[in-house]
Amino acid sequence: MTRSLGPTDFAAPIHDRWFADYVTGAQYEYGHLDVDEEEILRFAKEFDPQPIHTDPGFALHGPFGGIIASGWHTAGLAMRLLADHYLSRAASLASPGVDELRWQVPLRPGDRVHLRATVLDTRLSRSKPDRGMVVTQVELLNQDGGVPIAFRAMNLLAVRPGRRSPAGSA
Amino acid sequence: MTRSLGPTDFAAPIHDRWFADYVTGAQYEYGHLDVDEEEILRFAKEFDPQPIHTDPGFALHGPFGGIIASGWHTAGLAMRLLADHYLSRAASLASPGVDELRWQVPLRPGDRVHLRATVLDTRLSRSKPDRGMVVTQVELLNQDGGVPIAFRAMNLLAVRPGRRSPAGSA
Repeated sequence: MTRSLGPTDFAAPIHDRWFADYVTGAQYEYGHLDVDEEEILRFAKEFDPQPIHTDPGFALHGPFGGIIASGWHTAGLAMRLLADHYLSRAASLASPGVDELRWQVPLRPGDRVHLRATVLDTRLSRSKPDRGMVVTQVELLNQDGGVPIAFRAMNLLAVRPGRRSPAGSA
Repeated sequence: MTRSLGPTDFAAPIHDRWFADYVTGAQYEYGHLDVDEEEILRFAKEFDPQPIHTDPGFALHGPFGGIIASGWHTAGLAMRLLADHYLSRAASLASPGVDELRWQVPLRPGDRVHLRATVLDTRLSRSKPDRGMVVTQVELLNQDGGVPIAFRAMNLLAVRPGRRSPAGSA
């Protein structure tokens, strides 16, 4: 069971959290997830069967001196923490994509990771004022402060029903 | 079993393919993969448990009129085709990341997808002339020509041993 790790969390619970609850500059941390070799192998065999991810013997003599997780597995772990703690379960409409995804250090068996999510920007839609875009810097950190994955996420979130915009609430 | 779908494939087999075998402008297609609801639910329950991905009843009344795959599942399917057909099993050293990842249309149960990989750029490393960066536009296409995911991938690939650079071979 993962939990908030930072000095603050959202005031609004995840089931009643809306566009205006995401405020530029806010930063949240959630975790931890522990990663083992079995799950690294299982993911890689299904989605990324390169020997650096699937063959511990091969990987031992490879550039990382051992098996490392598929970068897309690492992305999945970040997503799990985002879904469990950060992204509203009421208001999340869609994501058009992410930018500048970087795998800065490998994720290895035995690593313990946590999520840092920083709200970079929020923009109410001009054409559809019932929703807005939230831009988030997402980082997964390991036990040494290394960053197995970082990316800038875009998420379309609904405005709280009955409010046309954060400034227009009654 | 997926296979090459395009008019051409690499001349070099995937086990003996090196940096110089990736040529700017070359385009390859591989497939198909069929996607079913069970695997969409299974991935989402592990990595992206938002109801739009895990709860068919909820999703029916959501913005997409039915369940859609996690965007990270879609990324995993693109990776599977890259690993099976495009990325060298001899020369692939690492990936620093991807840029401009976009989920243009949802991926739904029953969809059949294939991969299109276009070599955008290749650059031999100046500091380490035994390797180079290959930049690839990756697109997963569905049966209607829609693009469930596209991204620009960076991959570090080794030069064929014994050659310092493509121009410097003996």
